[in-house]
Amino acid sequence: MLEDIYKTSLCLHTDLYQLTMSYGYLKSGIAEREAVFHMFFRKSPFNGAYAVFCGLEQVVEYLQQLTFTDDDLEYLRGLNGADSLPLFDDEFLSYLQNLKITLEIDAVEEGTVVFANEPLIRVKGPLLQCQLVETAILNIINFQTLIATKASRMAMIASGEPILEFGLRRAQGIDGSISSSRAAYIGGCSATSNVLAGKILGIPVKGTHAHSWIMSFDTEMEAFEKYAEIMPNNCIFLVDTYDTLQGVKNAITVGKTLEANGHKMLGIRLDSGDLASLSIKARAMLDEAGFKDAAVVASNDLDEYSIEKLKKNGARVNVWGVGTKLSTAYDQPALGGVYKLSAIKDENGVWQDKLKLSEESVKTSNPGQLQVRRYCSAGKVEVDMIYTVDCPLDNQYASFVDDKGDVDQIGNSEFVDLLIPVLRNGTSVLKKTTLQDIQKHTQKQLDMFADSYRNIETPEKFKVVLEKRLHDKKQTLIKKIQQNVK
Amino acid sequence: MLEDIYKTSLCLHTDLYQLTMSYGYLKSGIAEREAVFHMFFRKSPFNGAYAVFCGLEQVVEYLQQLTFTDDDLEYLRGLNGADSLPLFDDEFLSYLQNLKITLEIDAVEEGTVVFANEPLIRVKGPLLQCQLVETAILNIINFQTLIATKASRMAMIASGEPILEFGLRRAQGIDGSISSSRAAYIGGCSATSNVLAGKILGIPVKGTHAHSWIMSFDTEMEAFEKYAEIMPNNCIFLVDTYDTLQGVKNAITVGKTLEANGHKMLGIRLDSGDLASLSIKARAMLDEAGFKDAAVVASNDLDEYSIEKLKKNGARVNVWGVGTKLSTAYDQPALGGVYKLSAIKDENGVWQDKLKLSEESVKTSNPGQLQVRRYCSAGKVEVDMIYTVDCPLDNQYASFVDDKGDVDQIGNSEFVDLLIPVLRNGTSVLKKTTLQDIQKHTQKQLDMFADSYRNIETPEKFKVVLEKRLHDKKQTLIKKIQQNVK
Repeated sequence: MLEDIYKTSLCLHTDLYQLTMSYGYLKSGIAEREAVFHMFFRKSPFNGAYAVFCGLEQVVEYLQQLTFTDDDLEYLRGLNGADSLPLFDDEFLSYLQNLKITLEIDAVEEGTVVFANEPLIRVKGPLLQCQLVETAILNIINFQTLIATKASRMAMIASGEPILEFGLRRAQGIDGSISSSRAAYIGGCSATSNVLAGKILGIPVKGTHAHSWIMSFDTEMEAFEKYAEIMPNNCIFLVDTYDTLQGVKNAITVGKTLEANGHKMLGIRLDSGDLASLSIKARAMLDEAGFKDAAVVASNDLDEYSIEKLKKNGARVNVWGVGTKLSTAYDQPALGGVYKLSAIKDENGVWQDKLKLSEESVKTSNPGQLQVRRYCSAGKVEVDMIYTVDCPLDNQYASFVDDKGDVDQIGNSEFVDLLIPVLRNGTSVLKKTTLQDIQKHTQKQLDMFADSYRNIETPEKFKVVLEKRLHDKKQTLIKKIQQNVK
Repeated sequence: MLEDIYKTSLCLHTDLYQLTMSYGYLKSGIAEREAVFHMFFRKSPFNGAYAVFCGLEQVVEYLQQLTFTDDDLEYLRGLNGADSLPLFDDEFLSYLQNLKITLEIDAVEEGTVVFANEPLIRVKGPLLQCQLVETAILNIINFQTLIATKASRMAMIASGEPILEFGLRRAQGIDGSISSSRAAYIGGCSATSNVLAGKILGIPVKGTHAHSWIMSFDTEMEAFEKYAEIMPNNCIFLVDTYDTLQGVKNAITVGKTLEANGHKMLGIRLDSGDLASLSIKARAMLDEAGFKDAAVVASNDLDEYSIEKLKKNGARVNVWGVGTKLSTAYDQPALGGVYKLSAIKDENGVWQDKLKLSEESVKTSNPGQLQVRRYCSAGKVEVDMIYTVDCPLDNQYASFVDDKGDVDQIGNSEFVDLLIPVLRNGTSVLKKTTLQDIQKHTQKQLDMFADSYRNIETPEKFKVVLEKRLHDKKQTLIKKIQQNVK
């Protein structure tokens, strides 16, 4: 299976119904009809106010390689329906064989702070193509956005103390773990333990030793001594294999030998027990022994909540190692991102707005070709306004409706439109950027929001409003659909 | 990134500390010393009693391809320690370059029902090699075992009604979703929506259409009619885009046209709202219209708990579509599988037992080379007993100690040893098997346990005991370590 995945084209990384619908669009003559879809989520993860948008680069890569191979077509040719007859015919398979992605995609820049119900990706082009790319977009963006958001929360609580991502052993396979390391780095982690992510993405890699190193020698002291002898400038001793405070003593002893030989013990790692009290004791012991610069690294199922609690309890930790809780987004392991049709041209080439009704009005999608304008004041973001590109705005004043239905106006001249060109005629127009730049952009973005929006437990709700004409259009459309249904 | 992953060797799919420890083992002259590690978990997932062991085939594949490429070595050569000097030297890199895996691995058969603290994989061989493969083993087994277990719980509650896995859009990337589809199938799902998993693994694929199909036409009726015209034998109509019961009416209308033309409507799908009451109403409408065979498919964030509740509320559902909650194991997204050293030869070639102490005695690992004997009576499993291969058992009687410390005897002649040979001298000796066979094995395994152990809410704890001599050896070793620490 591993080898097969890594050799195959990724075209079939999709749900079957995307293909049956594509087949249907072709057969009903609307495959080429121009349509617009948006990707968005309806609720920020972890009961927070915001999310960090992440994964765009992989979406673009996916789209650029999307070509059905003979192998793919052979597999599809062999699929049967419930009647045991082929699901797809030659016309469709040959359409797929000749398919070139010509989509126009606009999206939020990676690392941007985003909110529920805002369009994050706008996909415009032939209906069949829009449909075909849904699953991959959701698969990639949902996960990476979730992890980048989680990492940003942990980094915020650690307030400047480095966070190392150690989640590989609990992630979903190879690619799951690389995506997770990438997003964690963008969200604010300093390094990963995942060497393959280091090799492929250039993320700094970190790590020294585990309990098995200690256990491979007769005593802990011997294990520390050997490590110090072999890697004298890379010593962070794991002290909790047998007895944590005895371990700290042993580390100090070996640290002194290191020092006598012109080296420096970098620190110790605590991986079990009461990390607050152990770190306080370990810090005191290290300080007393003259190892004021030696770091206390803490790990063991940490997340933003436990880090916050440890800090409240006076923990003296310098570096946080996080794994499971980050790489699986343990307390909410999925972002419910969706992808909805919002406009399609009719047989006369006229755009028809579309929306998906929902029992809760907030879950009803927005119609048209959407854009988000973010208004700031003195460098701080005040409000995001969703509008349609066919109702252009002047450069200052706009009327909007908030989610209580109240109408108001905004007159800020400081603003930016969040969706920027990504793909034109199927080709990437995305500016090449480094992960380091995206990480910096994330930090800058987070800094643009008041603390209250970044609170991890009881955040203030950020104001996302609809431009007045979009709001009115949406209401009219809702009424029209409701009448049609009756 | 995608392309890079899919072209690279997977050797570096590991935590950095596995490499720094390997370097240390080589430099301290113990890299080739024979060692034994076991993979196990300490708590069954989802508050259940058991887990379904899964992922072994990918572990074997991973191990078989483990060869460091020039590219990998180049990357490792470029890594620096805290002193900005190279982390690894030429001797180590050339050792890796020439490394051939010679490990001896025994493991539980895939699809076997297993319990906390039982060894699931035993890895024996040179210390460096044992260490090097830890991360990949945990990464692959933790996730697939988690998902197979989750799927088995859902399948059990659905009691024979098919479960379709639709989780691709919420999984962790491409490989995460394929692993998830594989494990879900092994655990008891009937099919997946994931076409790439279908192509690579031969899992049956299923799916018809989404809301966007309905919204691409002027009315729901037109959308149903078009679909029926194009795929007359593959019609499961999604009825909740605008108004669910009106949608059922429309489906019935189109179903009648299908029938008149010699086809058959397969069913309808409900994807929102109160699935219990809607399914009861839809069933009545379908029955009354003569569509007694048409299935009611239900989806929308389902899991074993909501399926059970829907059934208690009288839901008339024939097929269950599950996504997020299965593919991310939403209520517990990680299995805490660990990998511990349990024996290593000393400089004289004599095996030395090892264990990792823990504050809780149940978390202290077992020493030696372990095996699990499963005793049955009249085809039902009664007890699992962990023993060491150097304390051979006779074929019937054994003394054991349970987790309360009570000593007892077992005299069943019906038993099986769970760990079977997987790798010998680095080469697979695993019998080739199909996913279908593994799925059947899982079902047979589950049937061997009393219902009380499979209860999803309040399961009976299954009895895993230590053979008396292993128990005694462990206690002696614990005392010895505790004395040494003081």
